[in-house]
Amino acid sequence: MTVYGGIEAGGSKWECGIGTGPTDLRATETISTTTPTETIGRAVAFFERSGPVDAVGIGCFGPVDLNPSSPTWGHVTTTPKPGWSNTDVASEVSRRLSVPVAFDTDVNAAALGEHRWGAVAGLDTFCYLTIGTGIGGGGMAGGSLLHGLVHPEFGHLRIPHDLRLDPFPGVCPYHGDCWEGLACGPAVEARWGRPAEELVGRADVWELEAEYVALGLVSVIAVLSPQRLVLGGGVGTAPDLLPLVRLRVAALLNHYLDADLLGERIADYIVPPALGPRSGVLGAVALAAATPSPRATRGGGP
Amino acid sequence: MTVYGGIEAGGSKWECGIGTGPTDLRATETISTTTPTETIGRAVAFFERSGPVDAVGIGCFGPVDLNPSSPTWGHVTTTPKPGWSNTDVASEVSRRLSVPVAFDTDVNAAALGEHRWGAVAGLDTFCYLTIGTGIGGGGMAGGSLLHGLVHPEFGHLRIPHDLRLDPFPGVCPYHGDCWEGLACGPAVEARWGRPAEELVGRADVWELEAEYVALGLVSVIAVLSPQRLVLGGGVGTAPDLLPLVRLRVAALLNHYLDADLLGERIADYIVPPALGPRSGVLGAVALAAATPSPRATRGGGP
Repeated sequence: MTVYGGIEAGGSKWECGIGTGPTDLRATETISTTTPTETIGRAVAFFERSGPVDAVGIGCFGPVDLNPSSPTWGHVTTTPKPGWSNTDVASEVSRRLSVPVAFDTDVNAAALGEHRWGAVAGLDTFCYLTIGTGIGGGGMAGGSLLHGLVHPEFGHLRIPHDLRLDPFPGVCPYHGDCWEGLACGPAVEARWGRPAEELVGRADVWELEAEYVALGLVSVIAVLSPQRLVLGGGVGTAPDLLPLVRLRVAALLNHYLDADLLGERIADYIVPPALGPRSGVLGAVALAAATPSPRATRGGGP
Repeated sequence: MTVYGGIEAGGSKWECGIGTGPTDLRATETISTTTPTETIGRAVAFFERSGPVDAVGIGCFGPVDLNPSSPTWGHVTTTPKPGWSNTDVASEVSRRLSVPVAFDTDVNAAALGEHRWGAVAGLDTFCYLTIGTGIGGGGMAGGSLLHGLVHPEFGHLRIPHDLRLDPFPGVCPYHGDCWEGLACGPAVEARWGRPAEELVGRADVWELEAEYVALGLVSVIAVLSPQRLVLGGGVGTAPDLLPLVRLRVAALLNHYLDADLLGERIADYIVPPALGPRSGVLGAVALAAATPSPRATRGGGP
């Protein structure tokens, strides 16, 4: 039987797993994201030790190069994360494990996992959004994972920022107060002086956060008209957030679009990940199984 | 030989045409959008007089119902345009001409026209944006026209609005200062006291307009990562606008994404419609020819 490896290669940690789906995840390991050499080395060691696997799917933080005809396919490109710019991830894993590798963004992998086994099964146009160390989004349109010129970077859209109510300038090194700059985990911590998980129950914190999250989601809805939105990530799944976000999205849309799901039924529209924190690693397994990239055979056949 | 009818059914005028493509548009007619009965009647009369046609494609202003299993498929739904809420367009045209009708948004039709014969030929992920009476957007992702829960409504995303620099409150009846509310033709006219076409050469007017257009385009790029953007419509094709928009989009993105097209080559990225004002009507012809809806056979076979 074919067995897959999956890596959710995040900016703060890599979640690795071996198996074929949510009920068959045979081994898992969490690795802190340190240097590229050390991090990739520890992931490879895990698959060598707990495998073998026939193929590996990698959902990677970015920006990444997804163009199969590019010489830097499978690389992290212009990330602000120190030490990771222009790092080859996919070919390196493929070469060292001698298996084919499928490569996409971390958020497209999570979206694929939720599509295969979770909250967006059966839909063809949807988004998965994560709010944590950064803000990222992926998904499908018309049944295809979102790619394009580079790939979606939801976090870097601009939203209204009322400096009288919130003078915080934002944390994005490229854009200051873009969506991610205002609403990612490090922005919450920098604005309020404590990490999000220590701010449970603080109405002022979560009302402002929900407003920013809702403003960004309105842009996602306006551009893509997803059939459902999955909200994941450490901040995205904070207990105070989701009910407020739903209220604010419906209020901001103000019944412009004739759809119950954007009004009275919005609780069925903006939902948590059904796979919990495993959307990404399971999606990476699904990526290996279902959507091998055109370069998947690079490392040898399964 | 099969001959198609196309209708770009806009909020201020309907452009009707008969033919098979840009070099074979045999008859055209422009009809002012008045009441539904009168407007649809005049379009039907044109096709009866100048046809016959074997099928009709309609690209319609919205919001519209594109769900083929809905009883109100082919209707304009919640439009703020007086008299047009809940108007059956597609079935009415199909019934009266006894031909199949393909129905989509006006902007998806224009996007399809530019894909078939124009500025985005050969691409699979792109957007067509119109700035005129309103702001609307359509396009393809992964080779499929953008649909989803309802359909994209680019104009109603929110953008930053600095009230100190521009105290104008916006014209959108649903959202006030959403993208369309700040940057559509009626907003330009209300803010400056004269219509956009009388403001040629006014640097203050076009710098502000370009800033708003660019802010919205950044959201479109962040969500969809289009391979190219086509900027159409009366305001969108104003001579002062495009060079400023390109500059501001590149500046706002600030080299976050590693793509020449989003920096030094942005003049190849944000482009005018190659079909000029005929993207929509030709796209409607293409819609009839290439993408009949699941309900296209309603009115009888060709």
